[in-house]
Amino acid sequence: MHNRTDLPYGTLIVGILGAGQLSRMMAESASQLGIQVKIYATSNTESAALLVADTTVGDLTDLKSVLAFGQTVDVITLDHELVPKETLDYLVSHGVVVYPNPKANIYAANKSAMRMRLADISAPIPQWLNAENLQDAENFANEVGYPFIAKSPTGGYDGRGVWQVRIQAELSELKFPVLLEEKISFIRELSALVVRSPHNQAVCYPIVETVQQDGICVQVIAPAQNLNPERASEAQQLALKIAAELDVIGVMAVELFDTGNGPLLINELAMRPHNSGHWTQDGAITSQFENHLRAVLDLPLGLPNMTATYCVMGNILGGSHLDLHRGLLHCLARDPELQIHLYGKQVKPNRKVGHINLVGDDLESLRERVQHATDFLAGKIDE
Amino acid sequence: MHNRTDLPYGTLIVGILGAGQLSRMMAESASQLGIQVKIYATSNTESAALLVADTTVGDLTDLKSVLAFGQTVDVITLDHELVPKETLDYLVSHGVVVYPNPKANIYAANKSAMRMRLADISAPIPQWLNAENLQDAENFANEVGYPFIAKSPTGGYDGRGVWQVRIQAELSELKFPVLLEEKISFIRELSALVVRSPHNQAVCYPIVETVQQDGICVQVIAPAQNLNPERASEAQQLALKIAAELDVIGVMAVELFDTGNGPLLINELAMRPHNSGHWTQDGAITSQFENHLRAVLDLPLGLPNMTATYCVMGNILGGSHLDLHRGLLHCLARDPELQIHLYGKQVKPNRKVGHINLVGDDLESLRERVQHATDFLAGKIDE
Repeated sequence: MHNRTDLPYGTLIVGILGAGQLSRMMAESASQLGIQVKIYATSNTESAALLVADTTVGDLTDLKSVLAFGQTVDVITLDHELVPKETLDYLVSHGVVVYPNPKANIYAANKSAMRMRLADISAPIPQWLNAENLQDAENFANEVGYPFIAKSPTGGYDGRGVWQVRIQAELSELKFPVLLEEKISFIRELSALVVRSPHNQAVCYPIVETVQQDGICVQVIAPAQNLNPERASEAQQLALKIAAELDVIGVMAVELFDTGNGPLLINELAMRPHNSGHWTQDGAITSQFENHLRAVLDLPLGLPNMTATYCVMGNILGGSHLDLHRGLLHCLARDPELQIHLYGKQVKPNRKVGHINLVGDDLESLRERVQHATDFLAGKIDE
Repeated sequence: MHNRTDLPYGTLIVGILGAGQLSRMMAESASQLGIQVKIYATSNTESAALLVADTTVGDLTDLKSVLAFGQTVDVITLDHELVPKETLDYLVSHGVVVYPNPKANIYAANKSAMRMRLADISAPIPQWLNAENLQDAENFANEVGYPFIAKSPTGGYDGRGVWQVRIQAELSELKFPVLLEEKISFIRELSALVVRSPHNQAVCYPIVETVQQDGICVQVIAPAQNLNPERASEAQQLALKIAAELDVIGVMAVELFDTGNGPLLINELAMRPHNSGHWTQDGAITSQFENHLRAVLDLPLGLPNMTATYCVMGNILGGSHLDLHRGLLHCLARDPELQIHLYGKQVKPNRKVGHINLVGDDLESLRERVQHATDFLAGKIDE
């Protein structure tokens, strides 16, 4: 315990490496729980740094600086998977508690490592290869046929770092090593969100459908419709199994391909609060951000049950309207039920700058209303 | 508009004078809406100052310092009614927008001024007198009989600054001027929470019952039970009328005595987010904190409707357990549906250090579970 005299006796302190919107939303939840939150940011103008008093600005590769930060908190958690492994290892070797721990985080940070580990535990994944050279890629193409998928093993997100290889001539454009994956025919994408604590307590949120456009999630529908209960249970059990096998502490999202009559196949994993769980802020008893904090602090987890029949989440993507706040006037006036979350981020094309949640009983109407608002804020429509 | 290059284009900025828990919960809501919040605190260890990056420490009587702060924001609002009127007037005279405005806030800050104004607009209030001396008090006693109530016109809260005068001998203990009020026989206390914007848009939350012990609210039941719809509507209309007549901008709470077969009578007014509205964080579509921010920024207001059949709020009062966080382990494990809010305040006897919300369909069970948790955290029970 850190006997800070400026905090109430016994106050728990969480440090977050990274200051994006996930960090900001964790900070909002921490504040509600009376947890003191500290942020390690790379600049004072990042999303979470705009909110949080206790912010340190530094570089994530500056081991001494990160350690000094880590020694002032009860636990370190992460805003994103790109924190260098050396930094996390250094913290752990100096006795700082880090969740998710570096051994688990490697699977979130490296897509090839993740597939190797998932194969080890017989989790259902598309056929894949970590191609070291052109010959590997040609062999893979011969095996699965065109088109197939190529992914940068590290650093990709929101469709970046993912390409479709349609013909043999495109093989020469690949930069090796590269992760190759068969192209799956799926009817939709699902997400299973699980939370696990050091006590081995785990909860799983209802399975949701994620609606994608150009590799970016645009809407989430909670719960996923027309999913038979056995299938939903299978997805939840799979997520719980992976979390236990990989010793994940905190929130983990398992993105899944629903192949219809075929099996559920794993697309990607994330070991942090995830875009597919933003609906929980307004549609579940305990939000993913609060449960992530409870987990990394080894507090009992909160109930993941829904508080409404349906919840639809729509991402607000940057478009032609620089002034997001002016657009709010129209959206809030038009629909006083919208629950709008903005991240304090400058608008850039296709950048996620916020999201909207809407709960209710009429799913089609919820989807239309969310779509209207996100389209309006992106400048795609003007009334 | 303030062209701060460290904020996204068009970001709205709210300044809050005072850094208590209401300020902290406003900051949580502001963050969600992408609104930049600035706090004017008297110390860095106050509730909201522990959270908010953009905190200025200063004295509320330091006009120059408060004005410099006010000139960096779009609107100033208040954490409590004790901000000196001179300070608010100074801000307004220099072109700073302040909501609630000083002319309205005077009624929240001074109970005698409030009763005079309410009498002007024929609002139903108990018989009262602003007694300047012992003779006034004797005359009032002769008129209403013993016991009656004496209140400090300014500065009282949570039962402080309120006394019962039971016999003539106690008159000599009064410090003048003092507000005297007939003692009302009531069956329960209600609260009407209204929000009003400069555009004259107004919304009213469902009428709630506030359960008091020793002058301190211990539970809030939303909605109030066995209240006939005409009565509920009467209370809402009354709150809306007062908000309009007094030109209140933001949240106003009207605490009411329910006299059973007699009329509803006004007990007190507060022009800020109010303890009787904390349930809205987890039981209404739009929380009072978000709607307060929307109102002072003249954004369209959010829907005040309930999201569950019932919501019970219980205040966590400081007791013998200094270490509130240790008690959390038990409460969270025992009841994973509890929605716990802590303020980052050191425990002191009877100090409000947090609250718990619980939503559901079985009111008696909700009340028992909330009572158990608040009793446990206060150290009244140990299992």
